[in-house]
Amino acid sequence: MLSALREAVLDANQSLGRLGLAPFTFGNASAIDRAAGLVAIKPSGVPYERMTATDIVITDLDGTVVDGTLKPSSDLPTHLVLYRAFAEIGGIVHTHSHFATVWAQARREIPCLGTTHADYFHGPVPVTADLGAGEIAANYEANTGHAIARRFAAVDPLATPAVLVASHASFCWGRTVPDAVRTAAVLEEVAQMAYHTLTLQANAEAIDAALHAKHFLRKHGPDAYYGQR
Amino acid sequence: MLSALREAVLDANQSLGRLGLAPFTFGNASAIDRAAGLVAIKPSGVPYERMTATDIVITDLDGTVVDGTLKPSSDLPTHLVLYRAFAEIGGIVHTHSHFATVWAQARREIPCLGTTHADYFHGPVPVTADLGAGEIAANYEANTGHAIARRFAAVDPLATPAVLVASHASFCWGRTVPDAVRTAAVLEEVAQMAYHTLTLQANAEAIDAALHAKHFLRKHGPDAYYGQR
Amino acid sequence: MLSALREAVLDANQSLGRLGLAPFTFGNASAIDRAAGLVAIKPSGVPYERMTATDIVITDLDGTVVDGTLKPSSDLPTHLVLYRAFAEIGGIVHTHSHFATVWAQARREIPCLGTTHADYFHGPVPVTADLGAGEIAANYEANTGHAIARRFAAVDPLATPAVLVASHASFCWGRTVPDAVRTAAVLEEVAQMAYHTLTLQANAEAIDAALHAKHFLRKHGPDAYYGQR
Amino acid sequence: MLSALREAVLDANQSLGRLGLAPFTFGNASAIDRAAGLVAIKPSGVPYERMTATDIVITDLDGTVVDGTLKPSSDLPTHLVLYRAFAEIGGIVHTHSHFATVWAQARREIPCLGTTHADYFHGPVPVTADLGAGEIAANYEANTGHAIARRFAAVDPLATPAVLVASHASFCWGRTVPDAVRTAAVLEEVAQMAYHTLTLQANAEAIDAALHAKHFLRKHGPDAYYGQR
Repeated sequence: MLSALREAVLDANQSLGRLGLAPFTFGNASAIDRAAGLVAIKPSGVPYERMTATDIVITDLDGTVVDGTLKPSSDLPTHLVLYRAFAEIGGIVHTHSHFATVWAQARREIPCLGTTHADYFHGPVPVTADLGAGEIAANYEANTGHAIARRFAAVDPLATPAVLVASHASFCWGRTVPDAVRTAAVLEEVAQMAYHTLTLQANAEAIDAALHAKHFLRKHGPDAYYGQR
Repeated sequence: MLSALREAVLDANQSLGRLGLAPFTFGNASAIDRAAGLVAIKPSGVPYERMTATDIVITDLDGTVVDGTLKPSSDLPTHLVLYRAFAEIGGIVHTHSHFATVWAQARREIPCLGTTHADYFHGPVPVTADLGAGEIAANYEANTGHAIARRFAAVDPLATPAVLVASHASFCWGRTVPDAVRTAAVLEEVAQMAYHTLTLQANAEAIDAALHAKHFLRKHGPDAYYGQR
Repeated sequence: MLSALREAVLDANQSLGRLGLAPFTFGNASAIDRAAGLVAIKPSGVPYERMTATDIVITDLDGTVVDGTLKPSSDLPTHLVLYRAFAEIGGIVHTHSHFATVWAQARREIPCLGTTHADYFHGPVPVTADLGAGEIAANYEANTGHAIARRFAAVDPLATPAVLVASHASFCWGRTVPDAVRTAAVLEEVAQMAYHTLTLQANAEAIDAALHAKHFLRKHGPDAYYGQR
Repeated sequence: MLSALREAVLDANQSLGRLGLAPFTFGNASAIDRAAGLVAIKPSGVPYERMTATDIVITDLDGTVVDGTLKPSSDLPTHLVLYRAFAEIGGIVHTHSHFATVWAQARREIPCLGTTHADYFHGPVPVTADLGAGEIAANYEANTGHAIARRFAAVDPLATPAVLVASHASFCWGRTVPDAVRTAAVLEEVAQMAYHTLTLQANAEAIDAALHAKHFLRKHGPDAYYGQR
């Protein structure tokens, strides 16, 4: 069972490299086994192409390494805060994918400018508030998680499964870690479309709420009619 | 004969993936057999690389599945409206290709800024009007087709074989489905050229009508002199 | 000897496709044998990957086909005017490469904004004047050549081996057709660099004339000291 | 030992081509053996794919060729000035990588707009002052090195291991030549992110100094906690 979790996390991390979402080692993926209370995460600073399943680190929800010989990703504390805050998610992906990072650097939420966005995110992709000096000085990574959780106080994390951390980059999540990887890939495309739309047409506006809901609900929830069955 | 139609539609759908026009499963292609009154279309939500000819769904012009075990693309009603509105077309392609989608999100027609555009489209690439709340709430996909047909009331769909659906993406068509795929590929290039031209030179103007006609008619119609024979 | 000319022209045309300079069949290359007065050029509308040496068409300087069974490129008359106007050139390449075409559509010359440009072009890359209605109506392709030749009345075509045809795309040339292909590739990179520079910094200025000359003359002419020998 | 130095420099030069950092032969890499006082550098104008270890030229710190039959890169004098000015560096890379060159052409330093930048550069990436006419006319390449050294009078070259030469392109360095190659790759990504951020949001500001230091010091120096060990 740990080995299935490790394989899923290995595959997710390597997908980030393959999909061009995490140049160098700028990114990491994790998954949680809720029943066992165990998290599997990328080891810190290991290139995707050399990583093996045994390199994946297993920790408990306090971040104590339970299995594995390598150091976990330095972003582990962010992941742990999110697993505690968002009870329904099973996987998390952090990437510095190009255009999502551009919006994070611009400290702007990504407005929903078309149905590609509406198919996957039921609202704009939000951006966190800046961290204060104290939040940077101590427990920086956990505080990054808390800033995300605060931003989602009134947002359903499964309807909007991504966030931009101001001046940093994106985190995505989902019921499973492959869902989180797919969301990261869609987010990058949507971020790039929104960049090009607003640089072409500075006053482009978010789409009509009814059209937004129509597209999201074609694909998600009890009345979805997209896909097989 | 159904099998030839299925193969053509399979090949067209897979071309969209290969040409980078439809990331994920954001796109679909169909073809019509006018004599038989049958339409072959992509199944809903099936990845291009796993799709086989038997997955292609055959329906009549009312959308009733005549052959095939999968659900047709949820955009089928749009295709059917277009086949009824444009009597001469034999294939349709819908993609969320990047720059065509950017223009659709900006709700702007693509002006003809150079001869690359003029070689393929005898006018700007038009954009539809927004759908009303009622058109979104019921029969959304068929209403998307009606919005396109209304936009072409005074436009020859074979001289301008593409449209931008406002806030959504593009539809392209042609006498055959491979023609529609090639138009989708050219549209993406032309949309990207127009984006870069207008962000470099905000006041760039559409080309001279005589130059536009010259280039279109070098390649199309009785006096064409491009290509062999 | 004709066969060597054909092979060089085949290779040049296929290079355009391989280098991403001529999507679809938007481009053509030719070479001249000055002693024999013969020009070898791409056939019209034949995809690069299916083209063979025997498909290359041989004409005289009046455009009469001397050898070959296919129709020559419809742009042949432009090439012929340039071979007559620029006595030292041996090869010509026409492409709709993306960013060079963007500048042509913007009807702007490409200013020399850095040493990458200065290494290859001893001045800005010029843009032609618009053609008049009469020049479009009859002998359009030859008139395109005349517009280029007029633009180079006071410019050395070997020191500035490229031009932007307004609202259309680029022509490049050189002592040999491989030189012309390399110039087309460098032009595309330089055009893209200039686009990004001016969209980042609208008031960026052409580089100092002394720096421009220094870089060009490091690589060209009697005092060149770049490369071996 | 010379052969290990040659292999490292060969590999670095070929990496530039493979990573897309040096289109054509726009770039060169060198390494120094401080004990022996010998520098290994790319030969001038030789394509990366044809280059072999024996083509790499060995010179002393005055630029006299000590071993090798080819001419060294014409940029050798720049490298030599940098090796003398920055005592701790072991390798140098010069590239015309696209977006770094765009910032050099815009004559703008790259501000730190996010943590991707902060992870690698402890400050903005500086730009040199223009060279004077006399500095261009004689000893141009050495004077380029002096302009860089002057710009770093008050900057630690290992904390900011890259520079933009105004109107030209970038130089990067590090304790070893593979470090310099990795810095060149990161610089290109960071330059592109900054371009897109500022064209999206013209008034985007450099990140908070505390956040900048936090990220740089997570990866560099005695308190680093990123990576294994």
